Amino acid sequence: MKTRLDCIFCIQRQALDTVRLVTNDVKEQERILRSVMVNILEMNWNTCPPDIADVMYNIIRKESKENDPYKTVKKECNDIALGIYPELKKIVDRSANPLLTAVRLAIAGNVIDYGVGPNFDINKTISLVLEKKFRIDHFTEFVNNLKESEDLVYLTDNAGEIVFDKILLETIMNEYNFQKIYCGVKVTPFINDTTMQDAVYVGIDKMEGVEIMNIEVDENKVDHPSKTFQEIITKSNMIISKGQRNFETLPDNKKIFFMLIAKCPMIANELGAEQGDIILKRGSG
Amino acid sequence: MKTRLDCIFCIQRQALDTVRLVTNDVKEQERILRSVMVNILEMNWNTCPPDIADVMYNIIRKESKENDPYKTVKKECNDIALGIYPELKKIVDRSANPLLTAVRLAIAGNVIDYGVGPNFDINKTISLVLEKKFRIDHFTEFVNNLKESEDLVYLTDNAGEIVFDKILLETIMNEYNFQKIYCGVKVTPFINDTTMQDAVYVGIDKMEGVEIMNIEVDENKVDHPSKTFQEIITKSNMIISKGQRNFETLPDNKKIFFMLIAKCPMIANELGAEQGDIILKRGSG
Repeated sequence: MKTRLDCIFCIQRQALDTVRLVTNDVKEQERILRSVMVNILEMNWNTCPPDIADVMYNIIRKESKENDPYKTVKKECNDIALGIYPELKKIVDRSANPLLTAVRLAIAGNVIDYGVGPNFDINKTISLVLEKKFRIDHFTEFVNNLKESEDLVYLTDNAGEIVFDKILLETIMNEYNFQKIYCGVKVTPFINDTTMQDAVYVGIDKMEGVEIMNIEVDENKVDHPSKTFQEIITKSNMIISKGQRNFETLPDNKKIFFMLIAKCPMIANELGAEQGDIILKRGSG
Repeated sequence: MKTRLDCIFCIQRQALDTVRLVTNDVKEQERILRSVMVNILEMNWNTCPPDIADVMYNIIRKESKENDPYKTVKKECNDIALGIYPELKKIVDRSANPLLTAVRLAIAGNVIDYGVGPNFDINKTISLVLEKKFRIDHFTEFVNNLKESEDLVYLTDNAGEIVFDKILLETIMNEYNFQKIYCGVKVTPFINDTTMQDAVYVGIDKMEGVEIMNIEVDENKVDHPSKTFQEIITKSNMIISKGQRNFETLPDNKKIFFMLIAKCPMIANELGAEQGDIILKRGSG
């Protein structure tokens, strides 16, 4: 997805949210934000928004010497989600269609997104998404692909949300015969995106048949984050892609099923959707 | 009011709104926005937000060679407000307290603010503000000052809103014995702020006892826009100041009565108010 001019100041807003986590000193916040602006100006904007956001985030990490500004936030999100995990499991188990319900919950969990902002209500979103009509609904194709695929890669998005992903992974493992599912997390911290630490914290490392897979978004390769994804796509039968960033970054491929809430107006527009719509979309490329 | 870091990307958002009025060419929009960012970076941010917004706006006018990007928008706003003028006059005339009702309407008109954005509903705001409790209510002092003052300066804010101001001016002229009221508009166009053209278009030039006064915000003096205001304050008994920009720019002085809707979260915070609150505040300095 191409960067729109709206993204340029939205990324700066994300920068301010992040800078406020690393220091309370307004002068220092200004110094880092100015550095972000200078670096954004030096970039070619004819790229996808996460490329610019990566530059922004790497500058903040470098300037603040804080490798993972959202570390505490991520733990809090994981704890909140783990707290409601038993209840969510019951909702799935009692459902007439456990897989569909687990998919809906995994999409509901996508509301926990500090790239968009901290103002979300997880319980309200769960109630809403369990009933809401999909704006794009490729669930039938999704089920058919689960039946036919020999392997599966599941690209997670955010901390907290990964607990909801765990429930979907458990449901898939329960209903289908995958020998192994690869659960993707990022090597380099980016906002509240999942890393190995989150996957281990919520117990995905203990799931039989699931292997955690590090996705490399090398700081020196931020202009080409899709290269590593391309390897995954080439080698896999089927990919579940969670969230907006993966949707913006991954090439359009029919192996991929995108699950997300369209939170950003630019992404909603790209999908022909409204903000807040829920999406289960098969790639078409 | 001091600039907060939030203002920096909000001003860039205003820049994008404005740039989209002057050209549909996205490459040209990017070129102008980059120029805005470079110039904001060159500024000292230890100033009030309108100083930075003025720099932004002057760059857009210079780069696009369009002196008044909101010219058409302003005419539309004036036309909409003139269309409901007879109805608004009736509301005031039938009111138990015409002055208070006219003040409420003048504040309701402040929702027409393209600095904040184009998504406002004037009829809904009128109904709301006619009933709403003031967050800051210095109406009694306002009335006492009207009784005691020999002269009055009325600083308007936005096109469209100026029709609501006209009704308040007419109500004041009807109830008090001012020989002359000076109605302030800007010399240099800034977003949808009023200029002489708007004042004449809505007929303020034809009001007996009202003289339109040009406020100079010289392009070369953008770091000191308050200088001209200081002259007004020194020479006047009483000033009515409409809107957020005047509140941000004017020195705090007990001669001034600020009337506005707190639309920006930073200004709401400065006032100890919530976004959407209505304010009639006497300066205290």
